[in-house]
Amino acid sequence: MPLSTQPYKGARDFYPEDKRLMDYIFNSIRAVVASYGYEEYDAPLVEPLDLYLAKSGQEIINEQTYSFKDRAGRQLAIRPEMTPSVARMVAARRQSLSYPLRWYSIPNLWRYERPQKGRFREHWQLNVDIFGVKSLQAELELIEIVDRIFKTFKATASMYSIKVNHRELVDNIFIDYLGLSKDQSYNLIKLIDKMAKLERTTFIDLVDSILSPKQKKLGYNERILSIISTQIITNLPKEVQSYSSFKELSNLLTSCHESGITNVKFDLTVMRGFDYYSGIVFELNDNHPDNNRSIMGGGRYDGLVGLFGVEAIPTVGFGLGDATLTNFLKIHNLIFEVKTKTDIYCSVIDNQFREATKIADELRRRGLNVAMDLTGHRLGDQIKTAEKKGIEWVAIIGPKEISNGRYSLRNIQNSTQGSYLLDEMVKTIIQAKNK
Amino acid sequence: MPLSTQPYKGARDFYPEDKRLMDYIFNSIRAVVASYGYEEYDAPLVEPLDLYLAKSGQEIINEQTYSFKDRAGRQLAIRPEMTPSVARMVAARRQSLSYPLRWYSIPNLWRYERPQKGRFREHWQLNVDIFGVKSLQAELELIEIVDRIFKTFKATASMYSIKVNHRELVDNIFIDYLGLSKDQSYNLIKLIDKMAKLERTTFIDLVDSILSPKQKKLGYNERILSIISTQIITNLPKEVQSYSSFKELSNLLTSCHESGITNVKFDLTVMRGFDYYSGIVFELNDNHPDNNRSIMGGGRYDGLVGLFGVEAIPTVGFGLGDATLTNFLKIHNLIFEVKTKTDIYCSVIDNQFREATKIADELRRRGLNVAMDLTGHRLGDQIKTAEKKGIEWVAIIGPKEISNGRYSLRNIQNSTQGSYLLDEMVKTIIQAKNK
Repeated sequence: MPLSTQPYKGARDFYPEDKRLMDYIFNSIRAVVASYGYEEYDAPLVEPLDLYLAKSGQEIINEQTYSFKDRAGRQLAIRPEMTPSVARMVAARRQSLSYPLRWYSIPNLWRYERPQKGRFREHWQLNVDIFGVKSLQAELELIEIVDRIFKTFKATASMYSIKVNHRELVDNIFIDYLGLSKDQSYNLIKLIDKMAKLERTTFIDLVDSILSPKQKKLGYNERILSIISTQIITNLPKEVQSYSSFKELSNLLTSCHESGITNVKFDLTVMRGFDYYSGIVFELNDNHPDNNRSIMGGGRYDGLVGLFGVEAIPTVGFGLGDATLTNFLKIHNLIFEVKTKTDIYCSVIDNQFREATKIADELRRRGLNVAMDLTGHRLGDQIKTAEKKGIEWVAIIGPKEISNGRYSLRNIQNSTQGSYLLDEMVKTIIQAKNK
Repeated sequence: MPLSTQPYKGARDFYPEDKRLMDYIFNSIRAVVASYGYEEYDAPLVEPLDLYLAKSGQEIINEQTYSFKDRAGRQLAIRPEMTPSVARMVAARRQSLSYPLRWYSIPNLWRYERPQKGRFREHWQLNVDIFGVKSLQAELELIEIVDRIFKTFKATASMYSIKVNHRELVDNIFIDYLGLSKDQSYNLIKLIDKMAKLERTTFIDLVDSILSPKQKKLGYNERILSIISTQIITNLPKEVQSYSSFKELSNLLTSCHESGITNVKFDLTVMRGFDYYSGIVFELNDNHPDNNRSIMGGGRYDGLVGLFGVEAIPTVGFGLGDATLTNFLKIHNLIFEVKTKTDIYCSVIDNQFREATKIADELRRRGLNVAMDLTGHRLGDQIKTAEKKGIEWVAIIGPKEISNGRYSLRNIQNSTQGSYLLDEMVKTIIQAKNK
């Protein structure tokens, strides 16, 4: 039986046109994060499983990780996320690095889950982190960067919302203000984190299941539902407004608005899965009715570096996946086909490969990307090949052209053709490129 | 016990300075291959194990692959090489792709082997392939590209040799000319492929072990050793010179020399491991006495696409690994530290973050990459941070500067400092960058 030509379920092949689109998206993003002084790093694809057991959410480790043993019996995992790796790298050089440390990476990540629209088993994710800043300036900078990234793709503020919350404020409200136990608070947080995937009635029942009979009787369910649906932070109860976590979140909202990011909103239901988040958390949501989902998520995780036996480092970071971002760009018509980088196709007549190679090399020396036909097929077929490849120009090189030093240059898009000296040919193409 | 900060054995962390070097190397290579019309593709990191069982060398599958089962029981492998994936992708769209098809990729690959100098369990490898060309023009183009890549790094012809051989010629010599059986020829090829790793006397004994008593008596060992050490192709026996494989290889050598690639040499011991090579094979060797090893390898593998149940497609490709290439560049002093992309560091005095953010944004709008200090530490410490990060310029932003509209700009390298309007500051930095 012949081998299958299909990729593994939930993973994608990137044909050149797909790869160009991916490069366009991530190179645009690279330019934005580099403009804020962030530097790219990378880490191994495979890490010891322990690294993820320590502080990720349990669901990810138990059900979603590709883990296996190597031939020496070491328990390994293909990275399901990048944050533990970057925390490890920072911990390893904690003393010699200088802060604020601004790092980013675009790793591929693997999660074993049912493939569905916008979710794959292998995806690429921009990870941006800032280390060593205790103040809200860190959160503010990252939210500015997220906003700048979306504006770079010509998204407007009405297309998306940035929702912010504070993990400590959630604890303050659930434990200190409402009087839930720590366990109840933890379970409620996990439940709210999955809320978007649940029917409303199921969610309400599950809130009930966390509460004691007495709490139920006292109307805790309604109190919880009411407080988590608060849309304006100053509408929170006065008692809550005295917590320092409230003040931080409130200040961040003000700073974002002052920076011109008007679509930042308070949302007490934003939890961002991972257990390691310790302070402010944020996510970006698509406002399009057909794609109402979270596209980017991040927050403060001051404790993670400390797990490696070194002093903790205040850290804020976010992740933005390729598939969810591409969906956003598609649904808002912000994406287009990216042209091939090949400028010119050399059609070779009568097997004049040796001379054609010299001409192609001369064109390369002048900065053009040149593909040469090597088939010896008739001219019409060679031109069709160039067209199929999306190359804009075809130069025709045969015995006559070589002896004249003048080449026919054909523009595929408008089917015009002219005869040019090599110099003129280069100028024509470069002029058209720069238009 | 705290978690280890070390990466998995044989895998590497890429801190920003390492990543910059890697990017410099591969982006230089990308420019060369794109100038020949090659387009980048990508494939999943994990493939069904079957894909590798079909046609790679057995050693790679049995001993060196990271293979495991997913939660549905599928046998998978982290890719040990890219060639089976690219053959799969081409086979999947065999009809709709247009030829010659020029593709490249820079995947990370995993092999379970003892880590040693220049060999890692995870490495990155440039893969360049051309599909649909039966003639030697394909081999010639790829050898030209390899040569161009090395010249791009300012390597000279004396630093490396490109060795070429022909798998059919080897069969012709061992089976048709010397009269070995097919099995003997196969075993001898596998042995020669490992020759460089063996003591000379061990190698000779192992050649003996392949031969029959009668062949030994007739001096086959010496005949084999003699013929495989032939350095000039025209010194091969006259009978051998009548094989069409001889003519092809001989023509390729001539064409390379005519193209100005003088360091291409015939070598009957070049086999290039993988079983799928079917025609000409080639490799590049470092001539440096302390690094006498193969750095790049490739060849023709016309049969691989056909394994997917579609018509075979003539294919030539090569692979070039990051670690071996970096070793080559280091040993020949062709490598240097790559500077950070961050142009300027904004030191903020008296917590003027809001105003400093506006100034930083204005600098970004004018095309500069700007990192801002967020620590509130004293100026001297902030300047030291910029220095440690390798950033060339520091702008000092405090209450006085903000009210004046003039900023102190300090050059870290030569410790000069001047006072500038924003416009002048931008000009000064851009001029220095373009120098």
